[in-house]
Amino acid sequence: MSFVVEATDGAARAGVLHTAHGTIRTPAFMPVGTKGTVKTLLPEEVRALGADVILGNAYHLHFRPGEDVVAGLGGLHAFTGWSGPILTDSGGFQVFSLRDTLAQVDDEGVTFRSIYDGALEHLTPERVAEIQLRLGSDIAMCLDICPPAGVSRREHEDAVRRTQLWAERQAGAPRAPGQLRFGIAQGGTDPELRARSIEGIVTLPFDGFALGGLAVGESRAEMLETVGWAAPALPADRPRYFMGLGDAEGILEVIARGIDMFDCVLPTRTARTGSALTSRGRLNLRNARFARDPRPLEDSCECPACRGFSRAFIRHLVNQNELLGLRLLTLHNLWFTVRLTVGARDAIACGAFERYRTNVLATLAAGREEEPWHPN
Amino acid sequence: MSFVVEATDGAARAGVLHTAHGTIRTPAFMPVGTKGTVKTLLPEEVRALGADVILGNAYHLHFRPGEDVVAGLGGLHAFTGWSGPILTDSGGFQVFSLRDTLAQVDDEGVTFRSIYDGALEHLTPERVAEIQLRLGSDIAMCLDICPPAGVSRREHEDAVRRTQLWAERQAGAPRAPGQLRFGIAQGGTDPELRARSIEGIVTLPFDGFALGGLAVGESRAEMLETVGWAAPALPADRPRYFMGLGDAEGILEVIARGIDMFDCVLPTRTARTGSALTSRGRLNLRNARFARDPRPLEDSCECPACRGFSRAFIRHLVNQNELLGLRLLTLHNLWFTVRLTVGARDAIACGAFERYRTNVLATLAAGREEEPWHPN
Repeated sequence: MSFVVEATDGAARAGVLHTAHGTIRTPAFMPVGTKGTVKTLLPEEVRALGADVILGNAYHLHFRPGEDVVAGLGGLHAFTGWSGPILTDSGGFQVFSLRDTLAQVDDEGVTFRSIYDGALEHLTPERVAEIQLRLGSDIAMCLDICPPAGVSRREHEDAVRRTQLWAERQAGAPRAPGQLRFGIAQGGTDPELRARSIEGIVTLPFDGFALGGLAVGESRAEMLETVGWAAPALPADRPRYFMGLGDAEGILEVIARGIDMFDCVLPTRTARTGSALTSRGRLNLRNARFARDPRPLEDSCECPACRGFSRAFIRHLVNQNELLGLRLLTLHNLWFTVRLTVGARDAIACGAFERYRTNVLATLAAGREEEPWHPN
Repeated sequence: MSFVVEATDGAARAGVLHTAHGTIRTPAFMPVGTKGTVKTLLPEEVRALGADVILGNAYHLHFRPGEDVVAGLGGLHAFTGWSGPILTDSGGFQVFSLRDTLAQVDDEGVTFRSIYDGALEHLTPERVAEIQLRLGSDIAMCLDICPPAGVSRREHEDAVRRTQLWAERQAGAPRAPGQLRFGIAQGGTDPELRARSIEGIVTLPFDGFALGGLAVGESRAEMLETVGWAAPALPADRPRYFMGLGDAEGILEVIARGIDMFDCVLPTRTARTGSALTSRGRLNLRNARFARDPRPLEDSCECPACRGFSRAFIRHLVNQNELLGLRLLTLHNLWFTVRLTVGARDAIACGAFERYRTNVLATLAAGREEEPWHPN
């Protein structure tokens, strides 16, 4: 078995997932390295943040530099210098979220225009499996259809049917030695469709299962209601992955409902807007109140940014568009998010997850009361 | 004495300059950190490259974030996290090279418009001394007038006269505890004016002397001819600083003529264009021939980029505008430039500088013969 649940606390679980390039401790936040790099960071820095696994994207890597180039350089690990586990997304999300590039979908696969050069491209489950084989990732996601929230029930129904059809084909396709493969359930927040998708996907021999098509525009309450029954409906002996979630509240709420893995561009993207994630909410470093603030982004934080630099310096860097500012905020935001899941894992192990979640959420809610800094 | 010449080889010198924040081994290339950051890098990375000293710019730091802010945070070292020596340029170069912002120059000082908000600003030698006092740099440069190449003799004559007048005033102005202060000679490549400027400036009690107004558009031959007699005309017991030079050939040629310190944005700026400096010339990583090249930027290089990454990966990052690509090229280019001066220093110490210079220049000249990479 590649996955072992080591402790449970309510529906929350702490486990380990063994892969060809090392162990992933769950609950696990996976920093996003779409194009083979977690933006601005060296692999050794990502590792030092405490991240066990990073994401790559088969869609983007297929187009640039191409799986042939990556394979020729020894695969994604050798190419990027990240020696730990890598999960590759299939590109389904990209194909179906970039709607104006979509040309045709049928049971065979999907035809769309490359965002890089506009050329027509055809993806099938077999082709996606082959791309991921050549990339050599540790966990390969199935090609799925991820509709945005608000589309018709008919469209959701088609997505569920084709996602299942494709998963059956991808499950039988060749994969890289030791590569794990995860199936994906769709169905939006429609209980009947989501249940149908889960019932179908769990009949296939996947090493883990993901909930896709959530956090795509529906309300937080609808999302949590769905996860509340859908996560426990996935096999207890396999890792459960919520695709595309990265805010502190969301992470804790889905962990509480039995999710083991999640990823999101939120920590890195928030850095690029000049903002820091903290236990008391976001700080927009462009705000003039930080101009002379000698404190670190967060007092108790041990990240490389907080160990060495003041809010005033980071604000200066951000305002001057100095890339070191973006880098320091990226380090901090990923540290914050990874630590949140490490804390959740520790709490689950000692049966204190509910208290942990309550405390973190209460501190977040109290955020705006933080004292501004006054010199004397 | 803050400066000790430890070895000479022809006109070339190896020495040490002691400052309030540590020792600078010369010949020394100083990475440029205009706004308090060597672009994209953490202070610890700059130190690991072997750089002893970095540059800051009083003009830019005065406007953003302002010397009051920096002083309030404990000075430039505490603010930026760079604990080693810092040299601050006076801003003279900026004021006089951004000609359309220049409003008026007279014997009192210079009036110009800020490039940040267009506001009128007045700088005098006393004001520049005060800004640098508040920044707390280790070496403060005098306010000088640096005309571009090709201006009239009359303009050069005015620049020499006012640079001297201002140096006399700045020499008497308060400075930070332990702060060294360097005078600057102007005069372009006009032997009479350059000699007049040197004769005047060396009568003042400066801790070092710089040649300004060279490498500003005149030919390399004219520049070297001037340095050939002007560097030895500066006091032998003080460090000699050539302002604004960073290419390998230029560095070796001015070391051969008795220069101890130099700075330039070339290594960092070249990185931003996607190019690597190597002992065999520049590599433009955007070139398709690197797409599958598994070699490091330079075979023998021990820099963090060459230790971990292929040309193919760096090319991918550069082409995708991933900031890690810029960061890796910045690390490599600074490493290359700092190592070049470390090599020169070692060669001077054992009386082999001429051979070192000849070998480096011959390899550079042979650069274009490098074999392209072929699989199999």
